[in-house]
Amino acid sequence: MRARDIADPDFPAVPVDGDAWEAASLLAGRKLVGLIVIDEDGQPMAILPGAEVLRFIIPDYVQHDLALARVYDEQSADELASTLEGKTVRQLLPKKELVDLEIVDGDATAIEVAAVMARMHSPVVAVVENGQMLGAITAGMLLDNVLPRR
Amino acid sequence: MRARDIADPDFPAVPVDGDAWEAASLLAGRKLVGLIVIDEDGQPMAILPGAEVLRFIIPDYVQHDLALARVYDEQSADELASTLEGKTVRQLLPKKELVDLEIVDGDATAIEVAAVMARMHSPVVAVVENGQMLGAITAGMLLDNVLPRR
Repeated sequence: MRARDIADPDFPAVPVDGDAWEAASLLAGRKLVGLIVIDEDGQPMAILPGAEVLRFIIPDYVQHDLALARVYDEQSADELASTLEGKTVRQLLPKKELVDLEIVDGDATAIEVAAVMARMHSPVVAVVENGQMLGAITAGMLLDNVLPRR
Repeated sequence: MRARDIADPDFPAVPVDGDAWEAASLLAGRKLVGLIVIDEDGQPMAILPGAEVLRFIIPDYVQHDLALARVYDEQSADELASTLEGKTVRQLLPKKELVDLEIVDGDATAIEVAAVMARMHSPVVAVVENGQMLGAITAGMLLDNVLPRR
């Protein structure tokens, strides 16, 4: 079982310079755990997890003092979401070094994919082969392939 | 919009002293991002993300040297998965202090839920009201409720 056999080719991808609001709406509408972010050449460059988008919307001081979160009403929720307006997907991405990427080769074994996912603490990895993106693999899809049937 | 209005009551929960293999199979079969772990009294006590189960299966030295992952064949994948045999869900849980929990009150606002999710880096939170578990909320479900329609 190789990555190319497991990858879901319909897993949504968004361009890194695309609209942040549209990316968030895609995550929301399809209840996704994350999106693949692609560069100008259509190559995957990062995973954008849903929790990261929430982290972008919610001010730091609210994340660190939950009592403050309680005072926000529906109106302010709308205002918070508006922080996505005019932003790009790039601005939502965690500020980490792009050394280790959540990307595996189509030829990677299930164990390799699991090792990348485990090391990166990522719920999704993108699969690439010969410069072509084949799709993505989630932890659930991978477990489904790694656990022997019984 | 409150947590109780957003929570999915059918989100699966597993007992902390339940079988690790069964929990992994549930994650796999339903392609879930994580499971709610409940204690002896049926109260949620943690979230078990799929990536955490993979981290348990894959030896540390393989996570740190991806070249080693490459040499594993299908046979060894079966052997790795067998590390779940005879283990409990408790043994799969990350060894963190159970001070901050991925749990919110049914009365929590969407912003409060988002703040907990963002702070805990968790893709799922459990919702509890009057000692009763109402269900769970994922980042995707929450974004779907937080983003104003347009």
